[in-house]
Order: sequence, then structure tokens, then C-alpha cells
Amino acid sequence: MRVGVLTGGGDCPGLNAVIRAVVRRGIKEYGYEFVGFRDGWRGPLENITVPLGVDQVRGILPRGGTILKSSRTNPFKIEGGVEKIKENLAANGIDALIAIGGEDTLGVATKLADLGVNVVGVPKTIDNDLSGTDFTFGFDTAVNIAMEAIDRLHTTAESHHRVMVVEVMGRHAGWIALHSGIAGGANVVLVPEKPFDIDAVCKYVEARFETNYSPIIVVSEGAVPVEGGDMTLQSGELDAFGHVRLGGIGDRLAKEIEDRTGKEARAVVLGHVQRGGTPTAFDRWLATRFGLQAIAAVRDGDFGTMMALRGTDIVRVPLIEGTGELKLVTPELYAEAEVFFG
Amino acid sequence: MRVGVLTGGGDCPGLNAVIRAVVRRGIKEYGYEFVGFRDGWRGPLENITVPLGVDQVRGILPRGGTILKSSRTNPFKIEGGVEKIKENLAANGIDALIAIGGEDTLGVATKLADLGVNVVGVPKTIDNDLSGTDFTFGFDTAVNIAMEAIDRLHTTAESHHRVMVVEVMGRHAGWIALHSGIAGGANVVLVPEKPFDIDAVCKYVEARFETNYSPIIVVSEGAVPVEGGDMTLQSGELDAFGHVRLGGIGDRLAKEIEDRTGKEARAVVLGHVQRGGTPTAFDRWLATRFGLQAIAAVRDGDFGTMMALRGTDIVRVPLIEGTGELKLVTPELYAEAEVFFG
Amino acid sequence: MRVGVLTGGGDCPGLNAVIRAVVRRGIKEYGYEFVGFRDGWRGPLENITVPLGVDQVRGILPRGGTILKSSRTNPFKIEGGVEKIKENLAANGIDALIAIGGEDTLGVATKLADLGVNVVGVPKTIDNDLSGTDFTFGFDTAVNIAMEAIDRLHTTAESHHRVMVVEVMGRHAGWIALHSGIAGGANVVLVPEKPFDIDAVCKYVEARFETNYSPIIVVSEGAVPVEGGDMTLQSGELDAFGHVRLGGIGDRLAKEIEDRTGKEARAVVLGHVQRGGTPTAFDRWLATRFGLQAIAAVRDGDFGTMMALRGTDIVRVPLIEGTGELKLVTPELYAEAEVFFG
Amino acid sequence: MRVGVLTGGGDCPGLNAVIRAVVRRGIKEYGYEFVGFRDGWRGPLENITVPLGVDQVRGILPRGGTILKSSRTNPFKIEGGVEKIKENLAANGIDALIAIGGEDTLGVATKLADLGVNVVGVPKTIDNDLSGTDFTFGFDTAVNIAMEAIDRLHTTAESHHRVMVVEVMGRHAGWIALHSGIAGGANVVLVPEKPFDIDAVCKYVEARFETNYSPIIVVSEGAVPVEGGDMTLQSGELDAFGHVRLGGIGDRLAKEIEDRTGKEARAVVLGHVQRGGTPTAFDRWLATRFGLQAIAAVRDGDFGTMMALRGTDIVRVPLIEGTGELKLVTPELYAEAEVFFG
Repeated sequence: MRVGVLTGGGDCPGLNAVIRAVVRRGIKEYGYEFVGFRDGWRGPLENITVPLGVDQVRGILPRGGTILKSSRTNPFKIEGGVEKIKENLAANGIDALIAIGGEDTLGVATKLADLGVNVVGVPKTIDNDLSGTDFTFGFDTAVNIAMEAIDRLHTTAESHHRVMVVEVMGRHAGWIALHSGIAGGANVVLVPEKPFDIDAVCKYVEARFETNYSPIIVVSEGAVPVEGGDMTLQSGELDAFGHVRLGGIGDRLAKEIEDRTGKEARAVVLGHVQRGGTPTAFDRWLATRFGLQAIAAVRDGDFGTMMALRGTDIVRVPLIEGTGELKLVTPELYAEAEVFFG
Repeated sequence: MRVGVLTGGGDCPGLNAVIRAVVRRGIKEYGYEFVGFRDGWRGPLENITVPLGVDQVRGILPRGGTILKSSRTNPFKIEGGVEKIKENLAANGIDALIAIGGEDTLGVATKLADLGVNVVGVPKTIDNDLSGTDFTFGFDTAVNIAMEAIDRLHTTAESHHRVMVVEVMGRHAGWIALHSGIAGGANVVLVPEKPFDIDAVCKYVEARFETNYSPIIVVSEGAVPVEGGDMTLQSGELDAFGHVRLGGIGDRLAKEIEDRTGKEARAVVLGHVQRGGTPTAFDRWLATRFGLQAIAAVRDGDFGTMMALRGTDIVRVPLIEGTGELKLVTPELYAEAEVFFG
Repeated sequence: MRVGVLTGGGDCPGLNAVIRAVVRRGIKEYGYEFVGFRDGWRGPLENITVPLGVDQVRGILPRGGTILKSSRTNPFKIEGGVEKIKENLAANGIDALIAIGGEDTLGVATKLADLGVNVVGVPKTIDNDLSGTDFTFGFDTAVNIAMEAIDRLHTTAESHHRVMVVEVMGRHAGWIALHSGIAGGANVVLVPEKPFDIDAVCKYVEARFETNYSPIIVVSEGAVPVEGGDMTLQSGELDAFGHVRLGGIGDRLAKEIEDRTGKEARAVVLGHVQRGGTPTAFDRWLATRFGLQAIAAVRDGDFGTMMALRGTDIVRVPLIEGTGELKLVTPELYAEAEVFFG
Repeated sequence: MRVGVLTGGGDCPGLNAVIRAVVRRGIKEYGYEFVGFRDGWRGPLENITVPLGVDQVRGILPRGGTILKSSRTNPFKIEGGVEKIKENLAANGIDALIAIGGEDTLGVATKLADLGVNVVGVPKTIDNDLSGTDFTFGFDTAVNIAMEAIDRLHTTAESHHRVMVVEVMGRHAGWIALHSGIAGGANVVLVPEKPFDIDAVCKYVEARFETNYSPIIVVSEGAVPVEGGDMTLQSGELDAFGHVRLGGIGDRLAKEIEDRTGKEARAVVLGHVQRGGTPTAFDRWLATRFGLQAIAAVRDGDFGTMMALRGTDIVRVPLIEGTGELKLVTPELYAEAEVFFG
């Protein structure tokens, strides 16, 4: 049995842990051989392979990123792409393929499975917005990095009677903002799922200053004001050169709060620091277990499935289930954070 | 409504997060008043109270330990203890009591509930061995601390061609060893649930040295050799003064491996470092949600229950369910770690 | 003897450690009394005082920020400011004042000392650009935070064949960039002391991609291109609203590199995360020793001096020496980093 | 020019940073070739070499341990050892040797230099007890790890009204105890340089319990009671089996304090965790600069020297200066810590 492995989409702490677990169990328990495809779907598309054995996966568990590299290549958007992939899989004698990735990568996997390719998927997104699984690996690492930044910013906010706005990742779903905001003791958390009212935000800010503490606002990069919300600086506006402004919602929010409340406000945009580096224990454990179960699914011939965490169990669900629709923050969960607002 | 709160047993990162969430929601949403009882069950027993309001819980979220202090006092082992507690609760006008603790603390809570006291429990143990809940807070912090130590020890092991034995907490259950061992890339993990064969351990050690890497062995403090296992140094043996030896299983195992394999071996006993200090994001989030739901259970008059994590939901289960029997590492889960042995 | 203490300017990890050491030794060894002035020079200017004794300084050693809060108020820019300060010091029976701060705060201290106020200074700046001392506290913490971010970004850069630009603090001096760049293994470090040539930067970027690694560029916020350097996006340009653009050198550099090399480039602006939170061991040790020596200087009547680190000794230098001119990165030190470029 | 490199003695965070800097500058600026000798002096003794070029040193900067491995082999204790080394250096065409190590490794280097071998030394010890240099790399990392452990233990001590004893490295010198004790806010620090009075220690413990806080005692592994100090458990005593007891000074001190004060006391022995893993920014910077200067010393033919930190400069001192006598904690520096006792 020869098994191909690839990683697609944005990098995410834990990818290497998945690869290592797949290879270790595959070789030790099942006697399989492995082929690494580089740069996501570009690997099988352009037949870029790397050796993948016990030696290659030694020592990679604590390392962020992916030894197989990644890309956002989508073979369905390239003419003849799917055929190329089938040819290259055949040429390499691949019996099964393990695809590790997010919505896009698994979306391709889903379609390929329908076309008869033996694919097993492993879900990956630091945003935690894939359906079908309680959590995805990478998310816990991102939340801890954001929380540690918030912890640090509390003291600077208080020393200067200042508002600190922390922009975290999350274009469509507010999971990182919600969890890091709760864990970091934020006074306001803004998520894409619920457009915010700038007046209400400023009221929380002012309420907070009545204590001896200073407000921290955690905002998803995808958060937006309610329609008609009177923000001076709007999303997507152009600068003098006709380009979209570089500043995101964090910068704009800080400026707006400063203008409205007269309190000094500063934004911190955490950016890519959230997705790099060594994974937390939770992410290493989850990623390892996803890997162990993915290769077991290959052995069982259980193709077209994706690994998922349910409670403390790793289960297999149809690929389509994980990629059908985004998992969003519910109003009930958001209400939990609101207890701590102001 | 006046609600008492106490924390019992060993300290655990996240206790303050529970207290804060209980108090914040209780005051803000339900208009309750709170009384803090100090030192676990000793508080209501000896009527030691501390003020507990919004001011007392500010800034405590990231702090380890418990602002209410703790003890291992068991009122059922003290004559007239239960009556004293009832009297003191009445004297303080307490309508309901939230007890945050492990097996012992919640065991007392269970019996008091049977005797008509309005108790709600919040489970706490860094060992993660309470039934009824997927995880307890404090566990994730302990596992991360252990993992970071293991990460550090890998380089020292390799530089010196040396065996490193890491003893972690877990008297009865091997959860910390299992999770930190998997996350840290240990070459052997030994847990109380499965007595170990010292010959097999030494074989793994020797196999590991055939690579360019050096072995790390993670062992629960409660791990024991198989009966008849020929360990020179036995558990519980006395020293020259008739006291039980200070050295635990970690020290003894390192010595034994050194004697048998001729390889230098060193033990590191992580000890109390695992249970102190600031909680991880996961633990702050879980503890906060336990707190929010505990005070909601009080509001609902849902006494005799304990909070539990199931997937991503916080549910209420009968107190007896969480304390009836220990949750142990299953053979299936242990087998997952074994993939990486040697 | 009554001693006033204040902290001015931007917050900096270690301020609380100084305050604690001053108060602990002052009370325990010399029997002094203390008065805390809040918000930097605004405290004595507006007579805002807080109690300052052993109780107030307990537990503050590991905490970032300053319990005395801070501001950038300059009494010499306020009519009658100096007289107000003298009056308020007299009204509070202050015999000596310890001012903890950077160039501005110590500049005021220098002038007040000339006017006969008994002042002792403690230097503080995360930028490390104060003359007269080998290091200032806060700097080591900032460098470690930046280095940890760079460590994380390496994996994300490599997984995506991407350039990562990390903007760190340092308006006038490149110490944080230099030290974190060396410690983080950056491939290019850009500092304010040496205008950069964008062509050379792009050559390093391209050279790096010829290995299996991806480039990380660390840039001080105050770094600038050489005159006539053909950067599309210039410093200080206005946006559609006539405001200075929000994006700093990091954003602009990433865009420029992307345009020129065709390689994807992303910027991370670390911002205020660098100056908040718990200090490193070095900073706690240095700040504590500065505090111990500052109160000893008060006892010795050695006013008009500032504490300074020389090797492993804390010495006293004239205040003017520390504030006379900025300490800049020398060409020799910069050349050390250049060994690793490309 | 062919240059050999070896690392000897206990591992220490920063060794890889030295190796990398030596090789990078040596190849890039001077066009040298390198040979790595494995396992300290055993390498040239038994002619165990490894390739050492730009590829081998990529990515090793943040990694603890040493890619050249280490040992405590001393060629002067092996018959014909020195001749073997000379032969093997000649056989490999080695023009100069860079030896990175502590007292023992540099002691050998000193003697070899006297015998005409072209040696340059780089000092290394986490204990910081080498003369001639302000600091050695590895020390800052060890101190930070110890401090973080102490930070964690504060909360557990307070929650349980308990004494925590933290044993840190330092057989002959108390630098790690002193720095981590000051940085961690310890209530007592015990170092080898000053035998301790157990009565005085217990008085500090009792004084501390009169506040709302609990005592943390930091003790060097080499600390000893004053002669005649009435410790029940003496150093080096034998157990029932005629072996030296496993428990060190930390365990014994905790037991003694518990017996005398009636307060619960627990020991944590940090052990090898202090010397493994990724270096701090300070250590990476210092190690890198030592490496850069060591290869410059080779170029200058400045043999028989050792690199040393003086203030912020790296200077060269005669090898004998660094290894002649241990650098110990002075009474003046110890007195600084005493301000915070009790």
C-alpha cells in the first residue's frame, strides 16, 4: 500500500504532528509506504514529490508550519487539473491520499472522492470554523498566543488610562476573538457574526474607566459595524492612491473610539504570529490523534471521510459534512462573553 | 439570594476564573449577594468568611491558586461537623452553596446535598480523573507545563546520549503522562493503569539509541512495575531512619535503567510546578464557563448537580456521577501512545 | 525622611520592580516613609498622591506596567509648573524624590535638580537608547517578545515560500531590531541609524529563496530608505482624508518587496505587545538593583544622579550624562548582524 | 584555513548559536573550512568528525543542546591522549581549534595551548561561575526557567498556607539561586558561598506567614548548613542499602522546616529542565557574539585566548584567566537579596 500525503491552505500549528502520526503508524503497524506531495494540491498536479518516511518525520512534532509546504492551488480551477492529478497519483503508484487542510483543500478532496479517488481528509483551520468537529488543531495555539498578548496589554492599558484594541484572526467566524477575549478578560469582544454598535462599544469603554482598570477590546478581523452605524472610517474605503487602505478594523476602531470618547486608544494587530510556531499540547494531541485515525481510515478503506473530534473521541464523518457550511459563534455563546462586558 | 462559594483540595489553575464568573454573572444578571468561605470546608465549618463581590474578583482571571484559599478538611470526619456547617450557613443567611473541588470536596458536597443543603458542584482536578466530564480545568495547564519541560529535555538527552525520565503528576490515573507524553514526543509513557515491564522499557531505550536521538520516558507518579517485575528498588522501602524513601518512581526508574542498560539516565520530577501559576486559555475558558453555568444552576434551583463538559457544551450531571468512580486511561487510548514507543 | 516616587513616560516592564525595591529597602533598612505620586510629573504638579508602603508593593514584582500610573506631562511646558511642584513637594514634606523614566522624565529631573530639588533618577526605556548605562530594564523583555514572534514566523514563512516583515519598536535607535534580529535569526535587519537600500534588501530576499528557507526581515519602526531610494510608498504621505497613513514602514516594506520580487510578503507590526506584561528575569534583576541603589543614593545625599549598569555593577552617574544624547547602534555592531544577511 | 570545533561538558542553551556564528562568519567572510569534532574532547581523541558547513548550521540557532554532542572526556587523564589529539588534528589538516566549554573543557584547552596547539576558547556554563567574563550564555535561560517556576509556585504556596522550597542548579556558586530568587521574589535565598543557619531560615518562614503570603525558599543544590547547624538530615548520609540518599538539599530542607515550624513544606527540584531547550534572547545574542569573535580571534592568530563579555563588549582574555578560579557570589551581592528576606 502506497499512501500520498499533502497539506493545503494557510499553515497551522499541528500540521507536522498529523504527518508524523500518519507515517509512524502507517509504517510501524501497517507496513505502508508513503509519498509526500509538496505545496498542497500543486504537488499531485505538477508531480512534485518528496520522500516521506520515519527519518523525515523525526523531530517535527514540536515544529510549526509543514514540512510538506503548502499552497492555495485549486486543481478544479485549472484546465485538465483533475486529470493531471489522477495521472500523477497513478504514476506514483498511490493507492490512497490523505489531504490535510481547510475548507478549500477539503472541498477539492470531496470532489475528487466523488470522482473515485481514494481520499481521506484531516480538517485544519486556526479559525475553528469547520463544521462536524468540536475543535480543529491550531485553534488552541492561536487562542493562547492572542491571550498572552492580551495579558500583556492589560498592564500597558492601565498604566496609561488607555484603550487597547486587539485585532485577531477570523474573517467569517469569531472563535479566536471569543475564546481569547474570555480567556484574556476582555471588556468587549466583537465578532463577524454580530455587527457591532459603536455607541454601545463606547459606553462599555466609558464604564470601564470608572473602575481603576482600563478597557481591552478584542475584535475579529472580519467584524463589521451594524448597517448605518456611524463609523467615520468605513470598510474598504480608498486612500489617496486609489488603493484599499492598509489599516484594518482594529486601527479604525481605535481611531473611532479615541474620537468619540476622548480617551487615548491604540490598536495591536496580531496577524501571522497567531498561526506560526510550536503548537500547544492540546493541538499536538489532537493533531496526532487525527493522524492516527486518518491512516486507520485508509486501512479500513473508509474513503471520502474526514476525521472529527467529538468530545474526547476521534470519529469519521463524510467529507461533505465538514465543508458544507461554516461553524459560527452562536448567540448563546456570545452572550456568555457579554457577561464580562464593560 | 445569598450564595456561598468555597474551593477545596489541591490548588489548580482556573479556580479563580470559576469564582470570578460565578460572582460576575450572579451580581450583574441575577442581583445576588455572595459570601466567600475560606480554606475549603473549613470555612463553613469554622465560619471563616471573606467578602466576595465585583471588587474582589477583578484581575484574578489570569492568576493561579485560589483567592479563597484551600484545605483538605472533611466535615464528615469531624464530630458534629455537618451540624456546624448547617448552623454557619444559616447564620450567614446562605441560600445556596457552590463547592469547587475534586473527588473529596465534591464527595462532601454530595452527602450534604442528600442532607438537604442547596449545593452545586464544580469539578476540579489537574489529574483529569473525574468521571462525567470530558475534561477538568487545570489539566490542560499541567499538560502544557509538562510538555514544555519535555521539549527542553530532548535537547539535553541528545547532547549527552542520555536517558531522561520525567515524573509527572497522577497517582491513580495517567492522563497527564499520556497527554504530555504524546505531545512531547516521549519514547515511553508509563501510567498507573498498566503496570510496566522494566525489560520492555529497557528494550525501548536501547532501540532508541540506535537512531541519532535519545529516549525520554514519561512516568506518572503512581506508575508501578508488574508484579514480580525485577526492579532492584521497590516502592515503599524504608531508609536508615525508618521513613519511606524520598525518591519516587522517577528516581528509581532512572537508576534501574542505568544499571540495566549501562546508559546514563537522569530523572526530573516536575512536582508542584505543574499545578501553580497562570492557566492556559483552554482552562480559563472552561473554568469561566463552569462558573457561568454553576450560578445559572443555582438560579434554576438545580441543586445536587455538578457542571460537566460534553463536547463543547457545559451540562449539569448529578453530583454522584462525577464522584462515583475514577475516570481511567483506557487500553485503547494507551495503545495510541504505544505507536510512538521506542 | 520622606521620599516621593514617580514613574513617567511610556510603560515598561520592570517599573514595579524598581518601586518595590526602593520601598522595601527604604523602610526596612533606613526607616524612611514614602509618598507615591501618580501619573508621572502630573502627580507632584497637581498633588495627586497615593499611599506607598510595604503593603502596596507586595506581589507587584512580576507585574508589568506601573502601580503609580504614568503620563507624559512636562511641568516645564506649563506656566508656573515648577513652582507648583516645589509647593506640593513641600506640602507633602518630601525630602527627596526618585523619578523613574526615560529621556523626557529624566530631562525634567535634571532641570529640577539644577533648581535645588533633591532628585535621584532611574533610567527606563524599552528602546535601550539612553546613554550612560549598558542596558535599561524593559529592553530585554521587549527583545524576547520580538524574538518569540520571529521564531513563530519562521515556520509560516517557510511553509508558504513567503517573506515576513516584522516591525519592532525603535523610533530613533535600532537596538530592539538588532538584538531580536540576531536572536531570531533574521535575514535582514533594518535600523534607523542606517538608511536602507531597497535594492539590497530585495537581493537578500532573493538569495534566501535559493535555499530551502524563507526570509524574515526585522525593521525598526523608525527605519527609513536611503535618500532617493526608489520606494513607491513614501513615509508621511497623506491618505484621502489628509491624515498621515496608518500603515508604517513594515506594511510599506512588505508591499514594496512583493511588487519588486514577485514573492508574497506579509508584515507583522508587534506594537504595544512589546512593552506590556511580566518582565524577564534580567529586567526584574536590573530594575530591582536600580531601585536598591537609588534609595541608597538618597540616603547618601547623592542627588542629581542617575543609576546606571556598567558590566555587572550599578553605578551612579550625573543625570545629564544619561539624557545628553541618544545611544545609537554603531556601525561595528550593525556589521555583526550583517554576517547573517541573505 | 581549516578550523575544528568542539563542545564539551554539560549542555547549555546557546551552544548551537556559537557554532552557527563561527561557521557563518568563517565561511562567508574569511573563506575557511570547518570540521566538527563530536562529543567534546573525545572527538579529536578518537577522530570522530562530522561535516560542518552552512547547511549543518541552518535552523539551529533556537535549538538547545549541541549538534556536535558533548562528553566529559579529558585527554590528559588518558594515556597518550594528548598525542592522539595532535595526530588527529594533523590528520584532518586542522590549523586551529575552537573549544566551547566550561572549566574542564577550557582547562584542557589551556594545557593544549601551552603545548602549541592553536586553540581559541569560548566559555560556557549555566552556573555563570567562570571568571573573566561578566556573564556566560545559558545562565540567563536557566534563571528565566527557574523564575517562571517560582512565579508558578507562589500561587500554590499561598492557596495552601504552605512553604515551597525550590532547589536550583549551582554546586559551587549561587548565581542561579541569587538571580532567580531576586527575580522570583523569594523570601529566602541560600547559596553555597554562605552556609545557612536553619534557625534563621525558620524565623523568616514564620515572619512571612504573618502576612497574607506564603514563603518561597530558593536553594542552590550546593548550599550547606553552617557547621554544627542542627539539621536532622545531614548531607551524604547513607540509606538502609548503604547508598547515598537520593534526596538533595531541597528535600531535606523542606522536611526540616516542616518539622520545626509545623507548617506544611514541599520541595521542587528543577534539575535538568534548567539546562535544556531554546535559549533566551540574551543567550542567543551573547553566544552569537562569542562565536563571531572566536573566529575573528582565529583569523588574528590570537590563540590561547578565551572570549569574555565586559559590559557590552566582547573581549579576548588569556584562557587561564577564565579557568583559574571560580567566580563566586560576593557578600555585597548576597546582601542585596537579603533586603527581601522574610
